Amino acid sequence: MHEPLVDIGNRYAHLYLDGKVFDLSYDELFAQFSHRKIFYICVNNSLRDLLSQNSLWIDIEPFIEIKGSYRGMGIDRQVVLLSRGDGIYIDAGSAITIDKIVEDEYQGGIILPGVWSMIKSYAQISPILEIESLDRVDLCKLPKSNTRNTISYGIIAPIVAFVEKINSEGLPIYCCGGDGERVSGYMQSAIYSKELVFEGMNKVVKECGC
Amino acid sequence: MHEPLVDIGNRYAHLYLDGKVFDLSYDELFAQFSHRKIFYICVNNSLRDLLSQNSLWIDIEPFIEIKGSYRGMGIDRQVVLLSRGDGIYIDAGSAITIDKIVEDEYQGGIILPGVWSMIKSYAQISPILEIESLDRVDLCKLPKSNTRNTISYGIIAPIVAFVEKINSEGLPIYCCGGDGERVSGYMQSAIYSKELVFEGMNKVVKECGC
Repeated sequence: MHEPLVDIGNRYAHLYLDGKVFDLSYDELFAQFSHRKIFYICVNNSLRDLLSQNSLWIDIEPFIEIKGSYRGMGIDRQVVLLSRGDGIYIDAGSAITIDKIVEDEYQGGIILPGVWSMIKSYAQISPILEIESLDRVDLCKLPKSNTRNTISYGIIAPIVAFVEKINSEGLPIYCCGGDGERVSGYMQSAIYSKELVFEGMNKVVKECGC
Repeated sequence: MHEPLVDIGNRYAHLYLDGKVFDLSYDELFAQFSHRKIFYICVNNSLRDLLSQNSLWIDIEPFIEIKGSYRGMGIDRQVVLLSRGDGIYIDAGSAITIDKIVEDEYQGGIILPGVWSMIKSYAQISPILEIESLDRVDLCKLPKSNTRNTISYGIIAPIVAFVEKINSEGLPIYCCGGDGERVSGYMQSAIYSKELVFEGMNKVVKECGC
């Protein structure tokens, strides 16, 4: 596939081209790619009209279908679930979504506040609970302190416990998003890839014959 | 025990007398009880000097000791852990603490943002994720929606999964705090009591012979 794949978010566009991922401002995207064919998904409703005016730019949303998914499910979340087949998918960004796919059918999933959002919550409860970033923690040992280590443990451990609970089948675990690599480090055999969304898009483009 | 037990928090005093719990403002506490003997704990450092001036008022903090606890652990958190012996203790207030006691020794525990704080986090991420209160959810079924049900599930399910994970021994689970009753409803055989802190205080007073 030589056409760029573009995941248009609420603030930036993420563009995949020749095996590399680029983060572009909307202006950069329009300036550099308006004369090229691209395939895109877009979660920013205010851009939709503008994007659809360029006949070279193809919105692949109408071709995305996941058995068992629900109306209103974010298109970026859906496309990630098409990337690798059955598994648990964790997209850890400003929110964290944890979804389960079995036999190509969506089983459901949850939405959690993202790591940064959780850090802010602690700080708002008490200055004692204020930390700037996460520590690497040992989940095998319950913490005994009020430190950064304990807050980090509190953010990570319930996520890991939940994933283990919904994955009694031992499905593969796929992580993406800004904190995806960090989260994947706490789950044996979890795979991190920042390109899951583009892998999913690639499949959709190939199958729809656009 | 006929003397009132008083848990002095950061905004109110909670007073236990003759089997009933009363929430009092600081002013009410001083006005109504300055001529009576009381036993108290206090987490509000700005009140300590004032409280210690009344020789009828006895701070039981020096008599509280839990094997394995750490320096700086909240005194209200500690006293709850003395209430019922071995078990998992969940105090679900503005923060949620989850602690484990085995053979009267503190094994460690975590601090999570409270339910209300989590609800605020979701709202700050996106207006789509804004809810006003929690739904009762069925934890056996992963949600498939963006609704209040899904947010509620996201708040409750990781807490429950974490408690189950650290409780392979099947210890009794004790819940207290403003959201303690709600949380206890998701764990089989969990016991809710809003009086755990006073049960713990009562034990300390009896043992120290004050």
